[in-house]
Amino acid sequence: MINLRNDYSEICDPSILDALKRYAYEPNDGYGNDSHSIKAANIIKERLCDKDCDVHFLINGTGTNKTVLAHILLPYQAVIACRSGHVSVHETGAIESTGHKVLTCEGVDGKVTVSEIEAIVKEHNNEHMVMPKAVYISDATEIGTIYTLDELKSLHEACQRLGLYLYMDGARLGVALTCRQNDIKWRDLTRYLDVFCIGGTKNGALMGEAVVICNESLKHDFRYSIKANGSMYAKGFVAGIEFTELFTHGRYTRLASHANAMADILRQAFIENGIPVAYQSVTNQLFPVFCHADIEKLKKDIIFEEMGPSDHDHETVRFVTSWATKKSDMDKCAAVLKDIMQGK
Amino acid sequence: MINLRNDYSEICDPSILDALKRYAYEPNDGYGNDSHSIKAANIIKERLCDKDCDVHFLINGTGTNKTVLAHILLPYQAVIACRSGHVSVHETGAIESTGHKVLTCEGVDGKVTVSEIEAIVKEHNNEHMVMPKAVYISDATEIGTIYTLDELKSLHEACQRLGLYLYMDGARLGVALTCRQNDIKWRDLTRYLDVFCIGGTKNGALMGEAVVICNESLKHDFRYSIKANGSMYAKGFVAGIEFTELFTHGRYTRLASHANAMADILRQAFIENGIPVAYQSVTNQLFPVFCHADIEKLKKDIIFEEMGPSDHDHETVRFVTSWATKKSDMDKCAAVLKDIMQGK
Amino acid sequence: MINLRNDYSEICDPSILDALKRYAYEPNDGYGNDSHSIKAANIIKERLCDKDCDVHFLINGTGTNKTVLAHILLPYQAVIACRSGHVSVHETGAIESTGHKVLTCEGVDGKVTVSEIEAIVKEHNNEHMVMPKAVYISDATEIGTIYTLDELKSLHEACQRLGLYLYMDGARLGVALTCRQNDIKWRDLTRYLDVFCIGGTKNGALMGEAVVICNESLKHDFRYSIKANGSMYAKGFVAGIEFTELFTHGRYTRLASHANAMADILRQAFIENGIPVAYQSVTNQLFPVFCHADIEKLKKDIIFEEMGPSDHDHETVRFVTSWATKKSDMDKCAAVLKDIMQGK
Amino acid sequence: MINLRNDYSEICDPSILDALKRYAYEPNDGYGNDSHSIKAANIIKERLCDKDCDVHFLINGTGTNKTVLAHILLPYQAVIACRSGHVSVHETGAIESTGHKVLTCEGVDGKVTVSEIEAIVKEHNNEHMVMPKAVYISDATEIGTIYTLDELKSLHEACQRLGLYLYMDGARLGVALTCRQNDIKWRDLTRYLDVFCIGGTKNGALMGEAVVICNESLKHDFRYSIKANGSMYAKGFVAGIEFTELFTHGRYTRLASHANAMADILRQAFIENGIPVAYQSVTNQLFPVFCHADIEKLKKDIIFEEMGPSDHDHETVRFVTSWATKKSDMDKCAAVLKDIMQGK
Repeated sequence: MINLRNDYSEICDPSILDALKRYAYEPNDGYGNDSHSIKAANIIKERLCDKDCDVHFLINGTGTNKTVLAHILLPYQAVIACRSGHVSVHETGAIESTGHKVLTCEGVDGKVTVSEIEAIVKEHNNEHMVMPKAVYISDATEIGTIYTLDELKSLHEACQRLGLYLYMDGARLGVALTCRQNDIKWRDLTRYLDVFCIGGTKNGALMGEAVVICNESLKHDFRYSIKANGSMYAKGFVAGIEFTELFTHGRYTRLASHANAMADILRQAFIENGIPVAYQSVTNQLFPVFCHADIEKLKKDIIFEEMGPSDHDHETVRFVTSWATKKSDMDKCAAVLKDIMQGK
Repeated sequence: MINLRNDYSEICDPSILDALKRYAYEPNDGYGNDSHSIKAANIIKERLCDKDCDVHFLINGTGTNKTVLAHILLPYQAVIACRSGHVSVHETGAIESTGHKVLTCEGVDGKVTVSEIEAIVKEHNNEHMVMPKAVYISDATEIGTIYTLDELKSLHEACQRLGLYLYMDGARLGVALTCRQNDIKWRDLTRYLDVFCIGGTKNGALMGEAVVICNESLKHDFRYSIKANGSMYAKGFVAGIEFTELFTHGRYTRLASHANAMADILRQAFIENGIPVAYQSVTNQLFPVFCHADIEKLKKDIIFEEMGPSDHDHETVRFVTSWATKKSDMDKCAAVLKDIMQGK
Repeated sequence: MINLRNDYSEICDPSILDALKRYAYEPNDGYGNDSHSIKAANIIKERLCDKDCDVHFLINGTGTNKTVLAHILLPYQAVIACRSGHVSVHETGAIESTGHKVLTCEGVDGKVTVSEIEAIVKEHNNEHMVMPKAVYISDATEIGTIYTLDELKSLHEACQRLGLYLYMDGARLGVALTCRQNDIKWRDLTRYLDVFCIGGTKNGALMGEAVVICNESLKHDFRYSIKANGSMYAKGFVAGIEFTELFTHGRYTRLASHANAMADILRQAFIENGIPVAYQSVTNQLFPVFCHADIEKLKKDIIFEEMGPSDHDHETVRFVTSWATKKSDMDKCAAVLKDIMQGK
Repeated sequence: MINLRNDYSEICDPSILDALKRYAYEPNDGYGNDSHSIKAANIIKERLCDKDCDVHFLINGTGTNKTVLAHILLPYQAVIACRSGHVSVHETGAIESTGHKVLTCEGVDGKVTVSEIEAIVKEHNNEHMVMPKAVYISDATEIGTIYTLDELKSLHEACQRLGLYLYMDGARLGVALTCRQNDIKWRDLTRYLDVFCIGGTKNGALMGEAVVICNESLKHDFRYSIKANGSMYAKGFVAGIEFTELFTHGRYTRLASHANAMADILRQAFIENGIPVAYQSVTNQLFPVFCHADIEKLKKDIIFEEMGPSDHDHETVRFVTSWATKKSDMDKCAAVLKDIMQGK
């Protein structure tokens, strides 16, 4: 079977396990106060060309979104997010569980627009409604699209003007920054965002996300928020070793590029075989549309998620490639698609 | 330097890294719905001699306490805990952050007593005060003591009588169950507790805790609570592989026994050298008391935590042994103690 | 000036002040444990033809919604509500502040439909999303419409089938039950709802809402929830005296009927003068649409709220009548509308 | 029967009902944006000799404590309070329900001491524990004692030095400021406190508390916190009228002085009859100690609360006088006490 279920199906890049083994018995301070964590933070700051940001390592994705938003919002403040945003739907109310409303907008291509932000801020103009104070975006988005540098700049400018923090969930930042259509550079991130995270889990790490705080006023006491939200590693050095490994010799971007390249093979197969897609993804998540019968055929060879009906006869499915996807599997997958579309 | 700072200073038992490496590229379902997690849960149920309990794997200790208590308490209900209990002090208000008061009692030897529980329940008898609904105990306790089977039975009986859930934080369950003075067996746990956890992080795992729910009425929808509290692994199979490894061939208890054996060497050294201890620990955390000058000397050879003054001239320190502690280090440590106490 | 701003602009029906004065020096037990509160609860139960429901008096509307939903939902559960529902927009995130997501649907005429509920329940089918557990409806709705008995029965049946609680915010229950188009009777309420409230504040009371719990499983410990949510009267007897007064000699419905009758005069004026309305309200809130110039003219004689543009040239405004509205004012208002629409 | 149960047993000073009746039909803006509320705020500012503080009117006591603390604390911050403090025990976890731990200290005579604050701040020195950020005091305290000006200044100085906010719960501020032993003046309050409230409910108002924010940095957006916490009046003008009435012609202090004078009669009777007291109250709450048999006799004539055993044979009870207590009742009460103590 070819696995296209998601990009966190496999343990991690073996280099990380090698590194962990190398340090298996080395005693370290706990809770991220260790030399590996400090080193990893410094390497990341260097990559971002920004010595002044703060870098913290948190255990997982939901914990990261929850911790960051709980940290930056006052009790009566809310975050604006796309309806398809991870915090809007897929976190079992983790944001609300910290007391904050998620104000949703429709978005365009899975992306929040400036005019939507302006409309929400305009509507929420008194104390009988929550006060919008942050904008949540994800890059790549939940449907595989990415923000352009111009879009990022416009969001930044709008947030500055409206007194909002701009937070980017970078659970899939690797595939966003390394895809062909991208024009955002690492060094743009700390300039245009107040906070963001660099995803490990979906980019070949064992687990963990790096949170980068750029806005000076948000830096204070973040470790209290990490701990209170249950997002702190006891063995912080595990994350330190991981992220050092990932950000040395360009491994992080190499793993992401591989995922994108594998997705390109599928994208090409869609075009060649006239398979429509539900969203114009440019990264490692693909959303082809098939008739029900073809989906049953696909299941014989491929593991994937079904996303629900696109019309009466058709359904959207999700194919996800990753750092671990093999080219031979993608070639097989292309052949399967060809056979199915040719009615074999 | 000899490291006695804590029992989560080293990455993990190498056998776990070997197992992770063995499965590095194996595709698995996410979020704990994988065969490794199911297998690990079954092995643990077998160890507990209880097929009916539910076993879940959560990311870390604070997250575990927070998730369990948020799951079992209604908004106006509170948990009773020892003043020295981990949830009372050392979790940055994580329990309160889910809306619940921690009702503290003094405890005896770091353990909650039946009469304290009774007194708190008696006091909190109307709707102007929180309603006590759970009792938090830890075994081993935060000061290294353990519950006897009789104490556990009495707490169980009291909780049943008073309508309280009994939750045991087993972050250090390994050293509790394997220490010489212990008379609680694995199979007693599901009989006398409503919920408990089996700690991985402090017993040689990379990270993670196994939560065991015994009370039928508390089992429903626990995965919702795990997710909402940010305590769910995306790569649940990592925990599955870990706990399978730990609970195969008695590794979990072997690692714990080692930690206890290493502590015994120190305990013996305390006796031989007339070093008083602040608490009668029987497990891997030791609390010797030294004068200030001796503490300065200790720092040259040993890494440890200072716990504050015991009287004007003396201070309590904490020595913690672990699965990773080397016997040669303990012998050296004993020698250092001897030298210092003989005024060398 | 004619006041049409809202239905809580005036202190209260003078009979309530008379009753309060009558008992000014009478000593009473606090917190609702007094004879007046018990009497008021009994009168309400009689009115509802249901001896088995529980009746509690809470201080205000937002507190009531917050307390009820915090009481009936588990931490990972959510409430379904119309986008225009009071809990969705106008409570500054009070529901989210207790940890719960409000799942919004579009609604039809300000009312939640069965098919919307079904769609939301169908979508939220696993632990990565919140679990819908309650439906919030308001009668009259925020746009002046009301539920029919058939609609209420259908919602009840759907909620039973889907395992949801049905909660009705009756902040404006008086005008709903007494308007001409209504076919729901008091005795239907406890049959088809799990919880509801009977609004005092907007129906001539000084302040306060009566919460009625019909579902046996939701009754326990509600007073703990009232207190913890800050919604408990110290002087509960004030509410007891108020609601006794309101539910004696049909005063509650008489005050509501008056508000509806006053609204009818305006509705008639809209028809006679060809003034369109944004929503087909049948109760005491009216939403006429005017061009900008006419709105400026209206402001000379009438106090009202502006609801935002309906198209480029027109705006919707809100006229609210109440128990305190004078017929002479409504006649004047009709004359003003006539003059304006005739271009005078 | 003589009522000594509490100081919120009677509706309110009749002058307030008269004022409410005077304005019964006057239309007003909602939510505290009315002329009465503005006037009341100004009168209070004048009384405080401070034009710069902000004054808000909230519905009730628990709501006030909850709203203020939720407003001034960040999620990981905690409030220090006396074990006997209202927020520590008697609010059903309302503070914890907003996510904050209450750090309790023993106190002396029901009052928090500087050295206790210093010890708590010293202990809580890293991110594994909550961060103390506010101190809660009540004046008069829950056991009837009061702070001296020197104590208040010392607390202020300590809080400034340690970076803590000082919040005073003035639910019984009236009896504190008007009792013979008091040397704090109204104008001292805004100088030495960051926030405080002036209690209405327990000093003759129908309901409601005035919150005064003195610290500039805490003023912003407080109305959002009031609303989100369910503590906002729809009919804010009711509070406006009440507090205008109370703070005109010295009525607030006159009502409080009366309560104190009534308590003095009882205090004198305790001395004359050799009745010991549990706490050295100087205000309107008294805590005499009786043997069980005498308590049974007292119950024939007096309504009061029992506070639990003081030793094997004796019990502490609570006698509370109020604005509504009649002198003739106190004389009768003194006679009853005399008879009982003389064994009649």
